[in-house]
Order: sequence, then structure tokens, then C-alpha cells
Amino acid sequence: MANAEVVLLDFWPSPFGMRVRIALAEKGIKYEYKEEDLQNKSALLLQMNPVHKKISVLIHNGKPVVESFIAVQYIDEVWKDKAPLHPFDPYLRAQAKFWADFVDKRLYLGRKIWTTKREEQKVAMKEFIESLKLLEAELGEKPYFGGESFNYVDIILVSSYSECPKLIQWAKRCLEKESVLNSLPDHKEVYGFDLELKKRFGIK
Amino acid sequence: MANAEVVLLDFWPSPFGMRVRIALAEKGIKYEYKEEDLQNKSALLLQMNPVHKKISVLIHNGKPVVESFIAVQYIDEVWKDKAPLHPFDPYLRAQAKFWADFVDKRLYLGRKIWTTKREEQKVAMKEFIESLKLLEAELGEKPYFGGESFNYVDIILVSSYSECPKLIQWAKRCLEKESVLNSLPDHKEVYGFDLELKKRFGIK
Repeated sequence: MANAEVVLLDFWPSPFGMRVRIALAEKGIKYEYKEEDLQNKSALLLQMNPVHKKISVLIHNGKPVVESFIAVQYIDEVWKDKAPLHPFDPYLRAQAKFWADFVDKRLYLGRKIWTTKREEQKVAMKEFIESLKLLEAELGEKPYFGGESFNYVDIILVSSYSECPKLIQWAKRCLEKESVLNSLPDHKEVYGFDLELKKRFGIK
Repeated sequence: MANAEVVLLDFWPSPFGMRVRIALAEKGIKYEYKEEDLQNKSALLLQMNPVHKKISVLIHNGKPVVESFIAVQYIDEVWKDKAPLHPFDPYLRAQAKFWADFVDKRLYLGRKIWTTKREEQKVAMKEFIESLKLLEAELGEKPYFGGESFNYVDIILVSSYSECPKLIQWAKRCLEKESVLNSLPDHKEVYGFDLELKKRFGIK
């Protein structure tokens, strides 16, 4: 019955929303998906996230959980009987949080590559590749960042792309998971959306 | 015995380091404090935080925990018998994380006020005051952000200043706590440090 009271306010190409969708899918939680028009935000979104006024917002029993990484942790804590998303050991949990935070801090650089002009692009690209190499080293020979199991860091990172061979293998493993597949927007549609954005902001 | 193996690599005026120091003090954990020279970082710091190469780093049994908010959570999870720093209820815990994240995202604006030139200062000041008002509203009539008990959000925020009356009362309550008092650098010394920084970067 609790599942019937889960609502997600989201915007389909959002990598942040995708994280929450994957966590919900991993836990097998049924929820109502409400697409937001970001040009004309719903009264519900403004009411549920009055501070940032942004998607995604998870609403559970009428109460909002804001920020995708917090929503993923919340989902793991509330529905703890299935598919644990965080390591039990406090040190490993701290490490998982470190890499998730690293992804949040660095991988916006990937977005910068296509939203900036040429001069800035080179710098962003260099830093982006360096960040990916650090992630590649952390993944090492493990199948997932969570070791044998698909985990918090995997969820935070899976929406990103890479040119590193181990990360590509990791991405493939993640993409074989139904929870991820069903939460990803269609690649062609995202590409179209990116082109549209670039056009709107005059970026070539 | 475990306490004897706790080391903190820190830099005395750091508000991030202060968070970790307060959490350790709240839990009554004895630790070895090692001051870092940021112009000439120690081999230990570079070894323990090879990704960011920054303070503060908590070292527990030889293993590093990086990022102050992660270190505070780690301390709370490992030494869980005394002074709980996070609410037990998952929803309240998500709320605490939201406000801690809000502080991290917005309160750097306070720093921007004295590190930028006049044109930018006005904008930063406006946003900073707005952020403080949101925090003031969230605090409401509670003695601490954690309700009756001093909590994660209190720790994250306590190093900041304010012009809001409720927040000042909250700051006073926090400053009466021994764990906070003993972890704060001397105000006059911080002021001198700020003046030195401004001079070095040619800011008036």
C-alpha cells in the first residue's frame, strides 16, 4: 500500500531523475510518474520543492524528498529488504559516498564540453578525461563499483558516457539490468534534445 | 584503543575541518591532530587524499575518509553509542541531509562576499541573505536544527555567521557547547588570516 503513495516529479532527459528511477526500479517500487514542463512548473512542484523549485522530487506519503542523491539514500533506507544499494560496512559506505560525490563534482564537466565554446571545451575535456581515468582506476577489476553488486555509485554514474575500456564494460553490465534499461531515456531522443538546447543557446 | 588510531589532517581556519573536529568532540574521541602547510603539503596528505589533495582527511586505522560531510557521517556510524548526530527516522534523516547540502551549496556565497569585487558583492550578499532567511524559517522555534538535540545540520552550519535573530540565538546555543568551543579557531586569528588572504590576492 505504501508503494501506491510514491510519486516522482521528473523531466525525462534528467540524469538526476534517472538515478531516482533506477533506485525505485531496483527496489521494485511502483510509483506514479509525473512529467514536469520546466517552462511552466506545476503548483505541486513549487509546493514540494519551494527552496530549489527543481525536479526531481520524490513524494512519499505526501512528503517530499529533494536532491537525487538524498532520494536514492532515502529509498534504500525505507525499502531495505530488497536490493541493498549501500555497503553495510561504514568504511565502505564512506568510500561509496566519496565516489558518488566525486561524480557529482566532476562529471558536470562532460556537460560543459557541449555547452561551452571552443576555448573552454579543451580545458573541460582534459579535466573530464582525467576524472574518468580516476573512476576507471577505482573500478579496477570489479564488475560494479559496488563490487559484485550494483550499488549507489553505479546508479550515480550510469547516466554518463566514457572512452575508457573498463568503464565501457561496466556501462554494458549496468545497461543489461532491467532497472537501468527501463529508466534510461531513448538515446536518439536525448540527442535530439541536446541539439535543440544547443540551437536555443546558439552553441555550435 | 581504536581512538588512539584516529588522526586528522587539517588546517586550523578551515570550516570543513571544524565540522570533523566538532563531530569527534561530540563523540568524545581522542585523536592526533596534524596541521598541514597548504603551500607544502605533507606526503601523508598526498597519499591519503590522492584525488583531491585537500584537507581535511580523517584517518581511522590507517584508512582515509575524505570530504567533511562524509567524515561526519562516518564518525556517527562508527561511534554510534554516544551523541547520535543523525535522526533515526529515514525521512527526518533525508531532511537533515537536504539542509546540510543546502548549506554547502549556498553558504559559500558568504565567502564570495569578501573574496569578490564590489559589483559581484552585491549579488552575492543578496543571495546570501536569502539563503539565511530560508535557514531561519527551517529552524523556526526549534533550539537546534536537530530539534532538541545538536545534530548534523548544526555541525555543518555552525561555522557560519548571520544577521538573522533566530540564527544568532541558535549560534549562541551551539557556542555554549564545549565540543564547538574547543573546535573553533580564535575569531581574531581568523580575522587576521582573512586580512592576510585579501592582501595576498589584492582584494579590498
